[in-house]
Amino acid sequence: MIKLYSFPGTVSLAVHIALEEAGAAYELVKVDFMTNAQRSPEFLAINPKSRVPALATERGVLTEAPALLTYVAQTFPEANLAPLDDPFAMAQVQAFNTYLCSWVHPAAAHRHRGYRWADDPAAIADMRRKAPEVFADGMAVIEAEYLRGPWVMGEAYSICDPYLFTVAGWLPRDGIDMARFPRIAEHFARMGERPAVRKVLAQLAV
Amino acid sequence: MIKLYSFPGTVSLAVHIALEEAGAAYELVKVDFMTNAQRSPEFLAINPKSRVPALATERGVLTEAPALLTYVAQTFPEANLAPLDDPFAMAQVQAFNTYLCSWVHPAAAHRHRGYRWADDPAAIADMRRKAPEVFADGMAVIEAEYLRGPWVMGEAYSICDPYLFTVAGWLPRDGIDMARFPRIAEHFARMGERPAVRKVLAQLAV
Repeated sequence: MIKLYSFPGTVSLAVHIALEEAGAAYELVKVDFMTNAQRSPEFLAINPKSRVPALATERGVLTEAPALLTYVAQTFPEANLAPLDDPFAMAQVQAFNTYLCSWVHPAAAHRHRGYRWADDPAAIADMRRKAPEVFADGMAVIEAEYLRGPWVMGEAYSICDPYLFTVAGWLPRDGIDMARFPRIAEHFARMGERPAVRKVLAQLAV
Repeated sequence: MIKLYSFPGTVSLAVHIALEEAGAAYELVKVDFMTNAQRSPEFLAINPKSRVPALATERGVLTEAPALLTYVAQTFPEANLAPLDDPFAMAQVQAFNTYLCSWVHPAAAHRHRGYRWADDPAAIADMRRKAPEVFADGMAVIEAEYLRGPWVMGEAYSICDPYLFTVAGWLPRDGIDMARFPRIAEHFARMGERPAVRKVLAQLAV
């Protein structure tokens, strides 16, 4: 059975939701960031990058949220989680997810993980102060340009939706009022109504 | 005809090489970062994120290097630039490219574009100092774990190769001796022998 290595509050949530939407049989394995389990020899043997999500499949371990999302969509085509037969539409899906992973997520990460990019405590503090502003600027681009509604790609729900839901869920913890982005807030609420999302959130609340 | 919006020294090089490898008919459009053309109203109408690469196709504009690389591979399947029919192998390709776009590229960007994440000049200076170390750490992970040889994915050349070539090409400008990564250095040299790469570099040197 597929194993999803995950931790609450991380982007593994997006893949977790996608697996649930796909009706996949999977086992959830918690990598406890509170005890630094992502840096244990056991987990480094699974993912040398010491990050979640990682997905252990019959053929080996896969990493990186956008890659896992596409993998789930391709492996469970009957779930219609991506426009698999349309390279242009698929590139739009990938571009959306890439914007989240390469710009918005790192922007947000400067609030809690500034030590990755600086050593001086004052520098880390300055990043921490600015991060919500950069994070919000990224979300504003999505609000204005890339969220078609009702789902990210329009009428069709896709692997972009759980990813946006996951990242939007970090706004309150970073002190950003989601109401600044009415379309994202509406999308967030709409996502919360989906049975797969409810099931996943209930699983994580245990 | 496809138009690639690009600028030398940016990640648009990877897509440029992929288009050339694919035998695509394309027009190269230079977005002059020296005059901040990426922030002009004309270019913002093409890519509201004010970044290159952007690819103008018959159906509209696509953005984000990993998405464009996959798009080129899917649109020119006869060029064999990705394992299109194997979701697991394709996820490995996507994971490699995602690691570059979400971790290694932002790490390097802290050297020249620290203002994105901090305002204090001392903080920007500290990021600038640390960036080559973080960039090198990311490349060390690739060297140790993800470059199979002779190409990234092993025997088969893929869309991972021009992307790694592009990012590895930034090492010297950031003061990092590529010889620290013998397999990456060998890959870089091997890439430089490919006719498509030579043609692209000659085009850019004009």
